[in-house]
Amino acid sequence: MPGTVYLVGSGPGDPELLTVKARRFIDEADVVLHDKLPGPEILASIPEEKREDVGKRAGGDRTSQEYTNDRLVELAEAGETVVRLKGGDPFVFGRGGEEAEHLAEHGIPFEVVPGVTSAIAAPGVAGIPVTHRDHASSVSFVTGHEDPTKPESAVDWDALAATGGTLVVLMGVGKLPGYTQALRDAGMAPETPVALVERGTWPGMRVATGTLADIVDARDEAGIEPPAVTVIGEVAATRERVVEFLQGRGDADATAGGDRE
Amino acid sequence: MPGTVYLVGSGPGDPELLTVKARRFIDEADVVLHDKLPGPEILASIPEEKREDVGKRAGGDRTSQEYTNDRLVELAEAGETVVRLKGGDPFVFGRGGEEAEHLAEHGIPFEVVPGVTSAIAAPGVAGIPVTHRDHASSVSFVTGHEDPTKPESAVDWDALAATGGTLVVLMGVGKLPGYTQALRDAGMAPETPVALVERGTWPGMRVATGTLADIVDARDEAGIEPPAVTVIGEVAATRERVVEFLQGRGDADATAGGDRE
Repeated sequence: MPGTVYLVGSGPGDPELLTVKARRFIDEADVVLHDKLPGPEILASIPEEKREDVGKRAGGDRTSQEYTNDRLVELAEAGETVVRLKGGDPFVFGRGGEEAEHLAEHGIPFEVVPGVTSAIAAPGVAGIPVTHRDHASSVSFVTGHEDPTKPESAVDWDALAATGGTLVVLMGVGKLPGYTQALRDAGMAPETPVALVERGTWPGMRVATGTLADIVDARDEAGIEPPAVTVIGEVAATRERVVEFLQGRGDADATAGGDRE
Repeated sequence: MPGTVYLVGSGPGDPELLTVKARRFIDEADVVLHDKLPGPEILASIPEEKREDVGKRAGGDRTSQEYTNDRLVELAEAGETVVRLKGGDPFVFGRGGEEAEHLAEHGIPFEVVPGVTSAIAAPGVAGIPVTHRDHASSVSFVTGHEDPTKPESAVDWDALAATGGTLVVLMGVGKLPGYTQALRDAGMAPETPVALVERGTWPGMRVATGTLADIVDARDEAGIEPPAVTVIGEVAATRERVVEFLQGRGDADATAGGDRE
C-alpha cells in the first residue's frame, strides 16, 4: 500500500496563516518536501529530521521538477506519508497541477490542501482589497516572469488591461518596467494606482505605492526586492485611505511614492 | 480606547481550512459578527453567546451593509474586541474593503486576516489547478451576479475571454447560460472544458463537468445549486485525469457530463 501525498499550501509566509489542516498534516507527516518559498519561519517550525529541501541541490543547482515528481512517488511507494509543502496555494503558479497529474499517473493517492495565496494576502494585510464593489468587478493574477519555453510565450497584457479589473502580478519586481509600459500601451491611464508589497505577511514587510507612470521610480527609491506582489488598479489607492488605522501593516518608513494628489 | 476590529476570512467552509490566526482571533474575540457564508460547521464551532448574525434581520430582510458598518464601529467604541468573519477571504468579493474604509473613517484600529478563497480552494479540492504551466498563465475571478446599481454595469466577458487564462466565476450558478453564451460569442471554443463545484470543501460537495457548450445541461442533470464555483478553461479537464486517486474529492455519484472525448 503506497502512502498518501498531501499537496499542501503553506500560505504567504506568516506561520499563523497556515491552515489548521496544513499544520496538522505537517505535524503528522513522515517527510515534508519543500523549497524556500514557505519562508524561514514556517520551515523552522518543522523538525529538521523530516524536512527534505527539493529547492536546491547540493551543488547549488535548482532541483528539477522531474526530480521532485519522482521523489514524491518514490517516498509514497515506500509507504511514507508525504507532505509536499508549497508557498501560497499549491495550485496557483505552484506547479501543483503537474505534481497531481504525475501522482495519478503512478497510482499514488493524494489530497489537496488549499492555502492562502500571497496574491490576495499580501495586498490584504497592506490594506488593499483586490476587489471592490465600486471599482473592481474582477481580479486577474498573472506571473511577472513567464515560462520562456512556452510556444505562445507572452501574457496578453492588452486583454488584461481591457478587463477593467484589478491586476495582481506575482514575481514581478524585475520586469516591472516592461509590463507597466505594456499596460500603458494597452490604454491604461498613467495615473492608475499601483502598489508593490514586498514580503507580505513576513517580518520586514514593506510597501511602495505610486502610479503606472512612476511606480518604477518608487520601487527603486524604496529598494523593493523579491519576493513581492504588484497590485494595479483603483483598489491600490485604498491603502492610503486606511493605513493610519491599519494594524500589522508593515514598515511604514519604507513606503515610497504615493503623493498622487 | 476603542477595541480592535479583525476582518477575518473563514476560508471555503471546511473548519480545518480556517487559518491558525483566524481560529485564535475567533476564540479570543468578545463578539463575532457574521453572516451565513462561513458555513454551518464553522459557525457551530463558535459559542452562541458571542455570535451576532448580521446576514438577516428578524423579519427576514437582509441586513444592510450600512448596518454592519455602523455596528462594527459601535462595538469597537464600546471597547469590544470584534471579529468580522467573512466567507473565503475578506477582500475577495466580500465588501471587506468598504468595511475597512468605514472603520478608518471612524478612527477604529483594524487588522486584516486573509483567508483561503473558495475561488481557488473549491476547484483545488476537486482536482483542478486554476493555473497550469502548460495551459494557463493567468487566472481571473469574477462574480456571476454583478451589482446592478453600478453605472458601468457588466463584466467585460470579451476581455476576459481574450486573456486566454482560466476564468473562475463565483456565485454563477443561475446566470450560467448567460455568461457561457457571452464567452462563446467572444470567440471561446465551445469545447472549452468547464467544471461546476458545489459546496467545495463542505460535506456533500458535488462536481459537474462538461464544456462551454453543454455545461448548462450538466448543471441541470446534476441539480447543482448555489453556493458553487464555475471554472472555465483547459485546467478544468485536469479533474478527469486525476480523480481516481484524489482523496476527499466529493460525491462522485453527482458528477455529470464529462464525456468529452
